[in-house]
Amino acid sequence: MAPLADLYQVSMAYGHWRAGRHRAPAAAELFFRRPPFRGSFALGAGLAEGLRGLRAFRFSAADVAYLRSVLPSTTDDAFFDYLATLDASEVTVTAIPEGSVVFPRVPFLQVKGPLLVVQLLETTLLCLVNYASLVATNAARFRLLAGPDMKLMEMGLRRAQGPDGALSASKYSYIGGFDCTSNILAGKLYGIPVRGTIAHSFVMSFRCLEEVQPRDLLPRAGGDPVDLAGLAVSWLQRVCDLLQTPPSKANQGELAAFVSYAVTFPCDFQGLLDTYCVRRSGLPNFCAVALALHQLGYQAIGVRLDSGDLAQQSKEIREVFRACGAHFQVPWFGTIPIAVSNDISEQSLEEFRREGSEIDMIGIGTNLVTCPLQPSLGCVYKLVEVNGSPCLKLTEDEEKMTIPGMKAIYRLYDAAGHPFMDLMALEEEPSPSAGQELGIHVLGQLGETTKVIPSTVEPLHRTYFRDGQVCEPLPSLPEVRTHAQVSLSLLSPAHRRLHEPQPYPVAVTERLHRLFLELRQGSH
Amino acid sequence: MAPLADLYQVSMAYGHWRAGRHRAPAAAELFFRRPPFRGSFALGAGLAEGLRGLRAFRFSAADVAYLRSVLPSTTDDAFFDYLATLDASEVTVTAIPEGSVVFPRVPFLQVKGPLLVVQLLETTLLCLVNYASLVATNAARFRLLAGPDMKLMEMGLRRAQGPDGALSASKYSYIGGFDCTSNILAGKLYGIPVRGTIAHSFVMSFRCLEEVQPRDLLPRAGGDPVDLAGLAVSWLQRVCDLLQTPPSKANQGELAAFVSYAVTFPCDFQGLLDTYCVRRSGLPNFCAVALALHQLGYQAIGVRLDSGDLAQQSKEIREVFRACGAHFQVPWFGTIPIAVSNDISEQSLEEFRREGSEIDMIGIGTNLVTCPLQPSLGCVYKLVEVNGSPCLKLTEDEEKMTIPGMKAIYRLYDAAGHPFMDLMALEEEPSPSAGQELGIHVLGQLGETTKVIPSTVEPLHRTYFRDGQVCEPLPSLPEVRTHAQVSLSLLSPAHRRLHEPQPYPVAVTERLHRLFLELRQGSH
Repeated sequence: MAPLADLYQVSMAYGHWRAGRHRAPAAAELFFRRPPFRGSFALGAGLAEGLRGLRAFRFSAADVAYLRSVLPSTTDDAFFDYLATLDASEVTVTAIPEGSVVFPRVPFLQVKGPLLVVQLLETTLLCLVNYASLVATNAARFRLLAGPDMKLMEMGLRRAQGPDGALSASKYSYIGGFDCTSNILAGKLYGIPVRGTIAHSFVMSFRCLEEVQPRDLLPRAGGDPVDLAGLAVSWLQRVCDLLQTPPSKANQGELAAFVSYAVTFPCDFQGLLDTYCVRRSGLPNFCAVALALHQLGYQAIGVRLDSGDLAQQSKEIREVFRACGAHFQVPWFGTIPIAVSNDISEQSLEEFRREGSEIDMIGIGTNLVTCPLQPSLGCVYKLVEVNGSPCLKLTEDEEKMTIPGMKAIYRLYDAAGHPFMDLMALEEEPSPSAGQELGIHVLGQLGETTKVIPSTVEPLHRTYFRDGQVCEPLPSLPEVRTHAQVSLSLLSPAHRRLHEPQPYPVAVTERLHRLFLELRQGSH
Repeated sequence: MAPLADLYQVSMAYGHWRAGRHRAPAAAELFFRRPPFRGSFALGAGLAEGLRGLRAFRFSAADVAYLRSVLPSTTDDAFFDYLATLDASEVTVTAIPEGSVVFPRVPFLQVKGPLLVVQLLETTLLCLVNYASLVATNAARFRLLAGPDMKLMEMGLRRAQGPDGALSASKYSYIGGFDCTSNILAGKLYGIPVRGTIAHSFVMSFRCLEEVQPRDLLPRAGGDPVDLAGLAVSWLQRVCDLLQTPPSKANQGELAAFVSYAVTFPCDFQGLLDTYCVRRSGLPNFCAVALALHQLGYQAIGVRLDSGDLAQQSKEIREVFRACGAHFQVPWFGTIPIAVSNDISEQSLEEFRREGSEIDMIGIGTNLVTCPLQPSLGCVYKLVEVNGSPCLKLTEDEEKMTIPGMKAIYRLYDAAGHPFMDLMALEEEPSPSAGQELGIHVLGQLGETTKVIPSTVEPLHRTYFRDGQVCEPLPSLPEVRTHAQVSLSLLSPAHRRLHEPQPYPVAVTERLHRLFLELRQGSH
């Protein structure tokens, strides 16, 4: 991958180079300012890809030639030669492990190295972390709402920002707690479980049973092939009698599509119920084919609904399944999994819970991958130290102020095992100790000193990148996913809840606070 | 690029193959159902990339091996052999030219070919068209709001869905009417003009003037090098006297950063005014350095503001520039371009217009590339004909109904040259004639026949892809961009306006309407 950069960053790099400051030791931090989706937390993600971006960080001859064409003609040639030699081999990166819960203002990535390279890495890192963390957080919220047993499937391929946006969406939704994706490429590249159902276009491509080829199916236990279409037609009559709906209202093309699918995938038969009328067509047709299959020893694996009142329909469908199961003495019929899709949002999940539903699986596309509640996490990357001097950005906008200096970050836990505060300290300060009182200043009320006694103190950052190489083993995707669920489960309910959560306090030590005051003093 | 597909599409493909229907002639259409952002129109974009996706459409050996691992183990081996032979060489694609204004329900891409391939192309095409059209439309709205003279810069690299999402954002924002991007890679790959300014981190990396190296600058007209830092300090005193602000409040690090940037880019000097206090630091420092440069024969090219009340500040800054220009007799000083950024939205542009402003250039990131007002266009891809039979999807959701059959699409213009209706006809119908009365049925009020007399009739689709090749010359990016502006300019003001526009009518011919009624009848 070519370095991702905005033009001004290369202009600045030239400025530093001209000034002979390009190798000045510098440190930058990556963090977000406000928790997304009006919650209290985010999931930090994108670290592994960011590290890959660091390893690949290099300007090719073509990159350099292009930059030469867009920078002012007065730019010194030697600068371009220098650019061609750059890599990230002198950069050190520490970070909070991928998939951890992270909070506003707390750096979840720290970069140290020569000023020029540290600045040039800004966009690469932001671009790889920003959306990753946003969509992982969004997925985690869906998981929290759906509860641990609901199957959640990501199906946003066609709504993402192109193919790579879609792949990121699949990967980071999985990290955030989804079970599977519809995206084959994501399955192939990342090993995420892929799932699929039948689509309206398949159903619509059939007009009548005569189109079904082949229609014979071997019984599972062996024996002569049976005409599944004929069998389904006779079952349709029995189902319609039971459901008291006229067989003439069951769409023949739909029945043909179901039969064709069942002959093709006898062990994986599933139905899409809403191409025509659910109650009078989709449901009787599905039951007929599933019962015909059952007669041959096969078990249908599910149905999907893609329109209408999903919760209400799921209950009606469950009733029909139970009635069929009881009447035709097919016990498993009552528990056929019901999947739903169609613009599912957090609000939909809340409604399902409120109204009650018989839904077993939810497919989410647009509202997962585009994060409409907040389509950008707004991570920023700020210099905090250059040449041994801490940097402070003081603007008229308090929220845009930075916390200066190279820091160590601690998460403080209470006696119940819940994290209750993240604490930023100067790197050279001794680590706080469990069970000992600390004087700290909470961001947002910096003027006051607060005393806290943590039961446990966890240093949050690990060193992931040094000397051009990843120096800490990176967990697998399923490991990151598990870590995310553990990290979320530790949160106190007040911080974890999605609506009006208690804001999670982030604090600085006395010494960091003093440094901040001194710098602020000095800049006026 | 490997084919983009959801698993169910491959399952369906297997279904068609098993049934011997995989080569049945089929046709599908791509369209959206509702206009985005509560406007009346969208810009259709992504065609060239979609065509590239078609040319590259092929399952590699690795793709096939992966599919073998995820499809049911009962899947016939010969199917995988068949998959490995597939390409798009039998597919024909017609489309509305890229960058055209398009309306809901009107197909802007039509695909014909063997059923199996036509269905498999669904996700590739949707993935490449959906976001492209969305962000182009978003950009077009910003352009309409900003007026033709405002410079608009895309700067969403770090807020997009990863690197490729960002590249798409740059390309399609340009098509929609933006002037330039900050993204170097987009400049390199697509030839889009790139622009850059100075960043807070550059300003913050300086503490004092002593850090500025080198500080000498040759006057433009020749002569001995001059210490720009010293010159700037003397100008700072004069500027502060004029502005009645104490020089001690002008941040020394900021002055150093400006001097350093000016020495580095004397012909391209620009200032970022809000790292510290705009009025007492950024503005005097910028004026001092710009006037020092002017003394040596160089002209500053602009300033940028990234926080606070941008419109109000721009007016204050303009006043200061004019005052400096008049007092120090530097006429061009009054017209130094003022650029703004910081979470600019449509609402911001409306406020700028309402309050008046002196803004010359606007940089937009998040609200351009993530399209928060509607983060997905929701394009769909629907089969309309299989084996010579038109398909109809009738669901309980009227909006989700499809219009059956292979169609020709016409745009009807009134005497003033404004398009007033898009008309879908059956492919085999004769083209409507200009000046002749037509009986049509408008979608949404299908029951009534309406008479219209178009002054001009434009067939909208061209054939772009046939026999595996692109068969129509594709315009360059600047040509697409120009076409988009022309297409927008033809819209009547009532359809073009962004808030509560008059909905643009889309109609079907009498014959298409009859076909629709017959099919609906037949499906009950």
